[in-house]
Amino acid sequence: AIWQAISSFGTADPLAGQPDFAGENHRSLHGRHVLVTAGPTHEPIDPVRYIANRSSGKQGFAIAAAAAAAGARVTLVAGPVHLETPPGVDRYDVESAREMLDAVNGALPADVAIMVAAVADWRAADTAGQKIKKDGSGEVPPLSLAENPDILKSVAASPARPHLLIGFAAETHDVVAHAQAKRTRKGADWIVANDVSGDVMGGDANTVHLVTASGVEDWQPMPKGEVAHALVERIASHCMKEER
Amino acid sequence: AIWQAISSFGTADPLAGQPDFAGENHRSLHGRHVLVTAGPTHEPIDPVRYIANRSSGKQGFAIAAAAAAAGARVTLVAGPVHLETPPGVDRYDVESAREMLDAVNGALPADVAIMVAAVADWRAADTAGQKIKKDGSGEVPPLSLAENPDILKSVAASPARPHLLIGFAAETHDVVAHAQAKRTRKGADWIVANDVSGDVMGGDANTVHLVTASGVEDWQPMPKGEVAHALVERIASHCMKEER
Repeated sequence: AIWQAISSFGTADPLAGQPDFAGENHRSLHGRHVLVTAGPTHEPIDPVRYIANRSSGKQGFAIAAAAAAAGARVTLVAGPVHLETPPGVDRYDVESAREMLDAVNGALPADVAIMVAAVADWRAADTAGQKIKKDGSGEVPPLSLAENPDILKSVAASPARPHLLIGFAAETHDVVAHAQAKRTRKGADWIVANDVSGDVMGGDANTVHLVTASGVEDWQPMPKGEVAHALVERIASHCMKEER
Repeated sequence: AIWQAISSFGTADPLAGQPDFAGENHRSLHGRHVLVTAGPTHEPIDPVRYIANRSSGKQGFAIAAAAAAAGARVTLVAGPVHLETPPGVDRYDVESAREMLDAVNGALPADVAIMVAAVADWRAADTAGQKIKKDGSGEVPPLSLAENPDILKSVAASPARPHLLIGFAAETHDVVAHAQAKRTRKGADWIVANDVSGDVMGGDANTVHLVTASGVEDWQPMPKGEVAHALVERIASHCMKEER
């Protein structure tokens, strides 16, 4: 269904969806500023240890690349990943959720923000200045956690809120229900719900559901590059409709 | 001082320290089985989150490469890293400390074991089968931790204990004192103490102190590749002395 939507959009404008077409004024996101976050965050426990998550950053980097190929000016705020910067993308590297929030606020205003990063919900409540040592007792004190800032919610409430704000949700169960609740709770326009129950995080393909105010689209499992191009074309289509 | 030691060893045997010299019977670790562990371990909290540390694996991989170049049969047990396997090295990838212990036990017997991996002291006491969700209260339950198996100590106590057992210690303060205490406590022969106070972990150079039963050598800061070659030549020298 998503491919039909793209191809009927293509009928309306034969140049749309052809990022390599000569003449940048015809590129579907020309003139837009698109902000993308990608990758995990690392939350320090002490100078050598941290809490991390399995996000590889591949989906966010693919979206940044697709948006740049569609003619957008792209700002990519990236957590710690092992990926090359896509051509034509302005990249800012951060480590923790709080650093990511600062970089995102610094990158606004944007026409579209696509928050793909797997931001840690929690950080260590106290970061030790020295490496924490075992005390020999065999007893281990529990690690106190504190809630991180909610970057998606913060951007949704910002005076510089992008016109189209898209969140991602990686879920292992009740994928669509969690994404619908997240869309409302966070104040996002769309949620791309990513079913990671099959250990997809870090892999090359995604099973995605697009949750909007109008309903839910179930996309076929497809490589992250195709998810990126499909999403970028949906965004371009949305931007053009809004302007009519 | 270390370089003098190597060069006087070189005087005794002009082929030693020349890993590329033709004729494998002359290579300084020919016929030895060397076990190396490298990298961090990742300790899962739930399907997407884990506790990690900043070890890049570069020092351990460099040692494995140097030992192979010196003619040893090398088994490398590696935590999650982004590094190529050195030529001539048998590599086994693991994730957690418990998986690393199993792989190490499976690799014994060995003549020499060099335990470079930054094994997590602690893991999550309970690993959740589903992604842990915020409950909306803003309250965050502390994370219960459990002590991991001590791989160095376990190998030291093994009936298959290598003849030369070398541990690494990454420390931010009281580097030598911690390393000396660790040598005794763990039952290792040597400890290579790595001063990470200057954020060296993940970088390309190390400031190292070699702690043995005879005392402490302070090595000059040098690239990890040079640390690796110096250590391998020290090991070769030790093995030859033991055989005399």
